[in-house]
Amino acid sequence: MTEGASTALLTDMYELTMLDAALESGRAGRMSVFEAFARRLPGGRRYGVVAGTGRVLEAIEKFHFGTEEIDYLAGIGIVSDTTLEWLANYHFSGDIYGYAEGECYFPHSPILTVTGTFADTCMLETLILSILNHDSAVATAASRMTASARERPCLEFGARRTHESAAIHAARAAVISGFMGTSDVEAGRTYGLNIAGTSAHSFTLLHESEEEAFAAQIATMGAGTTLLVDTYDIPRGVERAVAAARGAGGELGAVRIDSGDLIAQAFTVRKQLDDLGATTTKITVTSDLDEFSIAALGAAPVDSYGVGTKLVTGSGYPTAEMVYKLVAREGDDGQMHEVAKASSNKKSVGGLKVAGRVRDEKGHSAQELIVSAQSWEDGLAYLDRSGARPLQHKLVSGGEVNQEFVGKEAIAAAAKRHDASRAELPYDGWRLSRGEPAVPTKLVDIFEGDD
Amino acid sequence: MTEGASTALLTDMYELTMLDAALESGRAGRMSVFEAFARRLPGGRRYGVVAGTGRVLEAIEKFHFGTEEIDYLAGIGIVSDTTLEWLANYHFSGDIYGYAEGECYFPHSPILTVTGTFADTCMLETLILSILNHDSAVATAASRMTASARERPCLEFGARRTHESAAIHAARAAVISGFMGTSDVEAGRTYGLNIAGTSAHSFTLLHESEEEAFAAQIATMGAGTTLLVDTYDIPRGVERAVAAARGAGGELGAVRIDSGDLIAQAFTVRKQLDDLGATTTKITVTSDLDEFSIAALGAAPVDSYGVGTKLVTGSGYPTAEMVYKLVAREGDDGQMHEVAKASSNKKSVGGLKVAGRVRDEKGHSAQELIVSAQSWEDGLAYLDRSGARPLQHKLVSGGEVNQEFVGKEAIAAAAKRHDASRAELPYDGWRLSRGEPAVPTKLVDIFEGDD
Repeated sequence: MTEGASTALLTDMYELTMLDAALESGRAGRMSVFEAFARRLPGGRRYGVVAGTGRVLEAIEKFHFGTEEIDYLAGIGIVSDTTLEWLANYHFSGDIYGYAEGECYFPHSPILTVTGTFADTCMLETLILSILNHDSAVATAASRMTASARERPCLEFGARRTHESAAIHAARAAVISGFMGTSDVEAGRTYGLNIAGTSAHSFTLLHESEEEAFAAQIATMGAGTTLLVDTYDIPRGVERAVAAARGAGGELGAVRIDSGDLIAQAFTVRKQLDDLGATTTKITVTSDLDEFSIAALGAAPVDSYGVGTKLVTGSGYPTAEMVYKLVAREGDDGQMHEVAKASSNKKSVGGLKVAGRVRDEKGHSAQELIVSAQSWEDGLAYLDRSGARPLQHKLVSGGEVNQEFVGKEAIAAAAKRHDASRAELPYDGWRLSRGEPAVPTKLVDIFEGDD
Repeated sequence: MTEGASTALLTDMYELTMLDAALESGRAGRMSVFEAFARRLPGGRRYGVVAGTGRVLEAIEKFHFGTEEIDYLAGIGIVSDTTLEWLANYHFSGDIYGYAEGECYFPHSPILTVTGTFADTCMLETLILSILNHDSAVATAASRMTASARERPCLEFGARRTHESAAIHAARAAVISGFMGTSDVEAGRTYGLNIAGTSAHSFTLLHESEEEAFAAQIATMGAGTTLLVDTYDIPRGVERAVAAARGAGGELGAVRIDSGDLIAQAFTVRKQLDDLGATTTKITVTSDLDEFSIAALGAAPVDSYGVGTKLVTGSGYPTAEMVYKLVAREGDDGQMHEVAKASSNKKSVGGLKVAGRVRDEKGHSAQELIVSAQSWEDGLAYLDRSGARPLQHKLVSGGEVNQEFVGKEAIAAAAKRHDASRAELPYDGWRLSRGEPAVPTKLVDIFEGDD
């Protein structure tokens, strides 16, 4: 694609001008702690789902300023030659701690904590937020859909309604939140996801008749395929679909309905299929579904859901609204100091934070315990005394990415993790209505610094 | 990036299985006409803005199945060896007509018309829709913002709130709709856009004091820079900002306010700047702006707007909801026949369509005239008789892309085209409230085929 192999320019210009000024002022080397978190859950959702962490780690490995990047920056003259030289030698050498993909999160959960020099850590802001905000928004919507679908499979069909590269990663995020597969072929190749799909209305319209189209599809895909039955008239479509499969010596795998009143049609089509003896033929539906319509279809005889637009656009909330804030940095005394923006309506909580989830006696998540601490060890000791499950993992050590959290295998692990994390939520976590987070956040400051 | 240089797998799986079945049924070679259009304007917008066309053309040039793509498809076994061989030799060899980027559009405007064999044309569905739906959604939101901002410059700052690749193309779409630049450095490199940005709160917090931070920024960026004044206390921030610039022998370029009640603050800060004699120092604001808040700031002494989240997410409507439908195809008689899905709530209008815009006596757009015709010539003759300005351009001829519509130069032309197209809209086009399209669509069927 146009952006090339380096991820280094996927950034806001001000990261570069800040670096330039900080190198000049002598403050660029101050040890710093940046934190990515969400102040709120958009849309009054009850929980969020972390996704994109593995992609962040892969992107950091490719965050290098090569000749082409340096040449471009030199040409536009926004930073000094000293800074260009610094950039040419840059690779992230700090540490990153964070929530693993699939974990549920709540307001102020410290989803990603990046430590290193200011120069090292400030550079990654835009890229980290782009990835986490997109992928977590999709994963959060996807989780509400799979929760509403219960045991019925959900498939991701939204590529056409979102940016072509975003589509790949929307599919990845959906699978983390329990989707069984995707229509996006590139997502299949890149991440080893299951891909799915059979035909569109155009295929039926291309042929002289619905019968001819169905026979053609079965000839290559077999009787077990899914036939789209709503191009002309649904009852006739269903009849022809079943007949086409039987003509090829089999029973039809499924019919797909893509328009109209899906609930009423599901009952009508199920009855027709049963009356025709096609009791094993399944029904899949695919028309502008979201978590609410999936829930409403719960009592209808539907076997699977294909979800498009609403999934890839976060079902009304296309960004997770995470921010990346400097929460602590070294002072002239060589000690770390909590810092936070003071003015107006955007208050931040300062300091390095260690997070754990406290369960109640029934095993449900009861509290997101976030500890402002001087060190990881202090924070973890506090969590241990509180009986909280630690939520952060060491994702990067001295610039080296922990390979457990990247690549294809990490996606299956994330899906499993999400299933467990969601299962632990209290009843409120499963509510689709707007409201308070399912698990309250408690912030404890055990920071001992003399700020 | 992970997807590599070929765009061929940025597609839904069913395009491939349909091709496979159509090659087998002998219908893949039927001449076909596909059309990309929107049934409605999401959000009750008064007009849409076409964007992404140039990207579609570039993506089609890279739509080739190389060894890696063929190997992946062979491995998952979803199509026959014959189909794999066909794919290995595929390059689009049909024609594409369409609206140029920047043009306003309305429901049923035939934004992109793709003609060729079914195999040739069906393959491009997902990729075309992904690009047009994303880019046009952003351009449409962006146009409402620049219209509300009137003469004041708007800057695109949303990279962190959308997918990292989508961010590049959101910036491109924003510039087509009148934005002056972007914070996204990769968008600057890829498309030659102006890039902008100075510093974040973290830069101020990194330093021992606001004074030290301001001095550091001015040392590298000069007194003409924009200082962010709301990290601690705005009045003190403004005072220090002006003093810092004067300390360096200049007058401050601008202050940026990123939180709080922007309208009230703009008046207060302007008065303070004027009282300090800093009458040339400008005010830029950047906190969760959308077209409505920009309009509300119209009477406040603000000089420019930085827009993030709401821009890149289409201000509530992140997809343009365009569809790609087979509207005509060859029959056994060798003639072209109109086709359209008949069932339920998703009716399409069949046939090849030629579109023009009719102006009233004052020069305002009065009608989107869409003619269902047997040929381009017939349709254009009808438009000519109606005094309508033809809206479609020949974008691809026999697989060859018209280079006028791709690359960096095409973006400036698109921005100019948008400015003119929007200026032509009647008064209703400028209304932000939900309502009917500003220009009514008239569909005329002069199709002579014996369907």
